[in-house]
Amino acid sequence: MKTRDKILLTSLMLFNEEGEPNVSTVDISNEMDISPGNLYYHFKGKKFIIVELYKQFEQELVEILQAPINKEINMKDGWFYLYVVFEHLYKFRFFYNNLSDILQRHPDIRKSFKRLIKLKSNTSKTLLVFLIEQQILNIKQEEMPEVTENIIIILTHWINHASFRDIADKEVMIIHRGVFQIMSLIAPYFNDDYRYVYQQARHFYETLLAESSSEAKSFR
Amino acid sequence: MKTRDKILLTSLMLFNEEGEPNVSTVDISNEMDISPGNLYYHFKGKKFIIVELYKQFEQELVEILQAPINKEINMKDGWFYLYVVFEHLYKFRFFYNNLSDILQRHPDIRKSFKRLIKLKSNTSKTLLVFLIEQQILNIKQEEMPEVTENIIIILTHWINHASFRDIADKEVMIIHRGVFQIMSLIAPYFNDDYRYVYQQARHFYETLLAESSSEAKSFR
Repeated sequence: MKTRDKILLTSLMLFNEEGEPNVSTVDISNEMDISPGNLYYHFKGKKFIIVELYKQFEQELVEILQAPINKEINMKDGWFYLYVVFEHLYKFRFFYNNLSDILQRHPDIRKSFKRLIKLKSNTSKTLLVFLIEQQILNIKQEEMPEVTENIIIILTHWINHASFRDIADKEVMIIHRGVFQIMSLIAPYFNDDYRYVYQQARHFYETLLAESSSEAKSFR
Repeated sequence: MKTRDKILLTSLMLFNEEGEPNVSTVDISNEMDISPGNLYYHFKGKKFIIVELYKQFEQELVEILQAPINKEINMKDGWFYLYVVFEHLYKFRFFYNNLSDILQRHPDIRKSFKRLIKLKSNTSKTLLVFLIEQQILNIKQEEMPEVTENIIIILTHWINHASFRDIADKEVMIIHRGVFQIMSLIAPYFNDDYRYVYQQARHFYETLLAESSSEAKSFR
């Protein structure tokens, strides 16, 4: 692995674990056992690392968001797809945990992030329309903008929101609960023949929650 | 008005308009036409102003959140109540626009904010239970935790989220849309006899939106 890639990977890990504002370039070079000068040779400051990580984040998310367009999907694919999205968001959680701050410090990232949210919105709409056409969901045309926007809000803010709430000892529950929050949001729109998918999602989530800590239970 | 109160009011206005990280104590004293020394006599730094504003914010919100408990309410009261909450959040929007950053810099505010979210959650649950008992809403017991949490997410993150989205020229549309997002979230749970309240909310929102800018239309 190249030093440059290793710097990015180490930074991502430290940012996620310690919170981006609490990690300096010295912390990163210490963790890697390289000199600050060596790190500086690759990145002329923390902000260049953040910009590069954001680029990776964006590129991967764009690929994920463009995947389902022009494909037929069923409800279980939709459920699975939510996991793919949330796992990606979680991989770059330092960004969501400090969203407003990072966007304020980096106007370029802010612009690009606004476009990304538009793409999220388009993909959500496309998926919902597929599911409506297959009579899996029943959402009126006029209700689409608000339903889509509520999905986007939960997608965008869940990881940060979860940090104010004591969900579970196991961090992976943040992903499970995030997916389930969105499944719950669209649950009332399921046609009767497909409600079993929501019941499966609930059963799946509740089983995992029961296996998780007692702290998790207090959240409910 | 006492100088101390005037400092708080001026700070709130500047924080809301410019963003809290972009406002210094010198900016505040300049805006008030007082000396930095005079400001320093009242507050020994910006962080003390933030803590004091948070206290005001918290105190007012606690009063609002405790109001509906133990009272009978109908659906229109619920709709109106959402306005009261959102107007309060909007009054202190600098806080929501920079939430993760402020909570990271102020661990005491973070603790207190977590309690505040619990209170939000309790109030939402209480309101929903009232509306279910009066057969206005139909939400199954098992669905309550997720429905409540989705309401809390939108209440907590809408104002920040709206800043990534081009909603309207008129800032007041942020409040209207926030209220309508929550009305839309609970819309599928309305019993048939009460769906007209949701239709009224939609009509109200759409009329205001049409009166607003063309930029607003592009958001839909």
